[in-house]
Amino acid sequence: MTSRGLVVTDRFLAIIGTLDTKGAEVTFLRDCLRDLGWKTKVIDAGLLGPPAFQPDVSREEVATRAGKSIEGLLSEGKDKVAAVEAMAQGIIRFVTEWVERGEVAGVIGLGGGVGTWLGTSVMRSLPLGFPKVMVSTIPFQDIRPLIGTKDIVLFPSVADILGLNPLLRKVLRNASSALAAMAGLPQKEESSKRVIGATALGITTPAVLASRRILERRGYEMTCYHANGYGGRAFEEGVAMGMFAAVLDLTTHELTNQLFHGTGLAGEDRLEAAGKKGIPQLVAPGGIDVISRGPIETLSSEERKRPHYRHSPFFTHVRVSSEEMIQVGKVMAEKLNRSQGPVTVAVPLKGFSDRNRAGDLFYDPEADGAFLLALKKKLLPEHRVVEIDAHLNDEVFASRACDLLFEMMDEGRKT
Amino acid sequence: MTSRGLVVTDRFLAIIGTLDTKGAEVTFLRDCLRDLGWKTKVIDAGLLGPPAFQPDVSREEVATRAGKSIEGLLSEGKDKVAAVEAMAQGIIRFVTEWVERGEVAGVIGLGGGVGTWLGTSVMRSLPLGFPKVMVSTIPFQDIRPLIGTKDIVLFPSVADILGLNPLLRKVLRNASSALAAMAGLPQKEESSKRVIGATALGITTPAVLASRRILERRGYEMTCYHANGYGGRAFEEGVAMGMFAAVLDLTTHELTNQLFHGTGLAGEDRLEAAGKKGIPQLVAPGGIDVISRGPIETLSSEERKRPHYRHSPFFTHVRVSSEEMIQVGKVMAEKLNRSQGPVTVAVPLKGFSDRNRAGDLFYDPEADGAFLLALKKKLLPEHRVVEIDAHLNDEVFASRACDLLFEMMDEGRKT
Repeated sequence: MTSRGLVVTDRFLAIIGTLDTKGAEVTFLRDCLRDLGWKTKVIDAGLLGPPAFQPDVSREEVATRAGKSIEGLLSEGKDKVAAVEAMAQGIIRFVTEWVERGEVAGVIGLGGGVGTWLGTSVMRSLPLGFPKVMVSTIPFQDIRPLIGTKDIVLFPSVADILGLNPLLRKVLRNASSALAAMAGLPQKEESSKRVIGATALGITTPAVLASRRILERRGYEMTCYHANGYGGRAFEEGVAMGMFAAVLDLTTHELTNQLFHGTGLAGEDRLEAAGKKGIPQLVAPGGIDVISRGPIETLSSEERKRPHYRHSPFFTHVRVSSEEMIQVGKVMAEKLNRSQGPVTVAVPLKGFSDRNRAGDLFYDPEADGAFLLALKKKLLPEHRVVEIDAHLNDEVFASRACDLLFEMMDEGRKT
Repeated sequence: MTSRGLVVTDRFLAIIGTLDTKGAEVTFLRDCLRDLGWKTKVIDAGLLGPPAFQPDVSREEVATRAGKSIEGLLSEGKDKVAAVEAMAQGIIRFVTEWVERGEVAGVIGLGGGVGTWLGTSVMRSLPLGFPKVMVSTIPFQDIRPLIGTKDIVLFPSVADILGLNPLLRKVLRNASSALAAMAGLPQKEESSKRVIGATALGITTPAVLASRRILERRGYEMTCYHANGYGGRAFEEGVAMGMFAAVLDLTTHELTNQLFHGTGLAGEDRLEAAGKKGIPQLVAPGGIDVISRGPIETLSSEERKRPHYRHSPFFTHVRVSSEEMIQVGKVMAEKLNRSQGPVTVAVPLKGFSDRNRAGDLFYDPEADGAFLLALKKKLLPEHRVVEIDAHLNDEVFASRACDLLFEMMDEGRKT
């Protein structure tokens, strides 16, 4: 866009819709975008019937790109899930190609249950910052699996998407102008040289806040992810994409969840991206002493016997046992041993989380010591373990952890 | 905005943020909006400490507008909920005044748990179509209570909002350009003369789809809400705001939930707005034979004895008994008896929902008959009850229901 709002680009905006049931709505959306000066490409994702108008990419082309045929997908009868997933895969291939060639400037989708599921499946495969707008009835209780690790903008349709009306036109006009504006922004790619990736949870927040102050004083910025599964996943993806010069992975809690069936899983490969990337990583055992479980009513009788507390109506924290802590230590060491870059594990000797502190419910120096021993035994000698006589959330711990990170980074610059 | 993108308005954009912890982020957002040519007003909602910079509306002014003082709110000690709610109330008063005077063109907020809760509380009080953008870590499992019945646009921040970094700047640039674009749109208010408000659920969808075709053939548009609590609430609000010429309230299921502790409540005053507004209302008992309950595991032993089925992993449908159906009939009649406008209740004699059909699990003509009897007994003679020898989801029912609605509307035009 020029400063005066004229679109001076050859790029287009992609619209994903089901032209069997939502032809009028997609047409309106397309016309809004055209009125704003944009070229468009409409992709038909409809499985129920022929399109209301000729799209730029037909449902047959979509199915073919996924290695299927529309007839095949429909004849699979009741397995709607597989059919929708195949359509999403086909669309992902089209859009990814357009993104790689720099031809598409943004994507918009609209739908109810199936449409939102399909549209967000496509959007989750697109890069951060790339404009992606989902107009949705928000039919799901938990939409976070649909958003995943991406900046998918949600426009609630308020009413059903079932024909045009003044309310829906209002929402679609807003959504299309928002998409067009984002697509028209100059694309700024900032350097990652002064950016540190970090991980936090409520139970480790003081450590992260203190670290942030220290990093900022040294001229660094921090991008901090919530270690609730989604966050850890997004953190690993950010590392892999080269968004960070180094990581301060203070909250490795998701390792414990992964091992002991907690909620909030970041995936089997948590704590591996930084090693693959070869960037310096300062790792701490923040929250590895805690298994995140669902509402307190859902705890097993075995879990009820352990120290546990209600973190919120939705989550209960259960203390990890000595034997389990040994396993966490081993797994952490195994993952870090595969690292291509420098690794330091900073272990606070006075507790790994908010309520793991002398006198409080989760304090168990024996179990935490078992973790430390297992870690040290397994970790290759080229990696450091530094014991710090403080609680994870003490200022002195953050200060020492940041110093250790800077040491690794300085070392890297020298060689 | 002119067609060339220059802002030629005296209106401003409002930014809601906590300047104690998020001063840098709010400053960046404000500068983005200014760069796009907009004036801004920053409202400080911070309770934890003094602001990072001088806002346009201070936290003291916010508290005062809510009839409180910052000191008072803080001294209430641990009751953070009450303090945040008071701040939200204060901000609502400022913003509502600005909206009424036509001074503000859009609102944006950013935050984590508390910030999202506070920002969306304010936005839920603003009119549909008015641009409202929430940049959020999406820390809640179910964000629908936060969105409520409004078109609050959600921008996921992906990472925590904890200091500036390239990712957050990307998201904030996108969000501010989206807000500015929406705010710059010409405000089109469309007439409601040709718009019918309607209600649907999966179990009544065929009735609504058939009605939509009929309405559209007659030159009407339909705005249809999902009767899952949020939808019924939004429907009632839409009626009250004058968005519809008449209503086709085919899915009154939420009355049953309200009476018998179902999930998905639209409020005590469901089925009352149209009567107060005096617009013609065609009412049907769609889904009143069903209580929506949570996951099947949560059913009581009494409920397990009744006909019930799993609607989804999250919802179980439980059949309503004869005695309960009588209560629904009475309550429906009482509500409709207070109507200022014409009312017709169309009752399908072959079943009120998908699985309430001869031979299927919820078929219970005796219970449905008890409802009909109670309704007829209680409903004032100026209102009509029309019995239709069909299932609610039969084409003939929709056709007859629409005809009855048109009759009332034609009648209204004559007098």
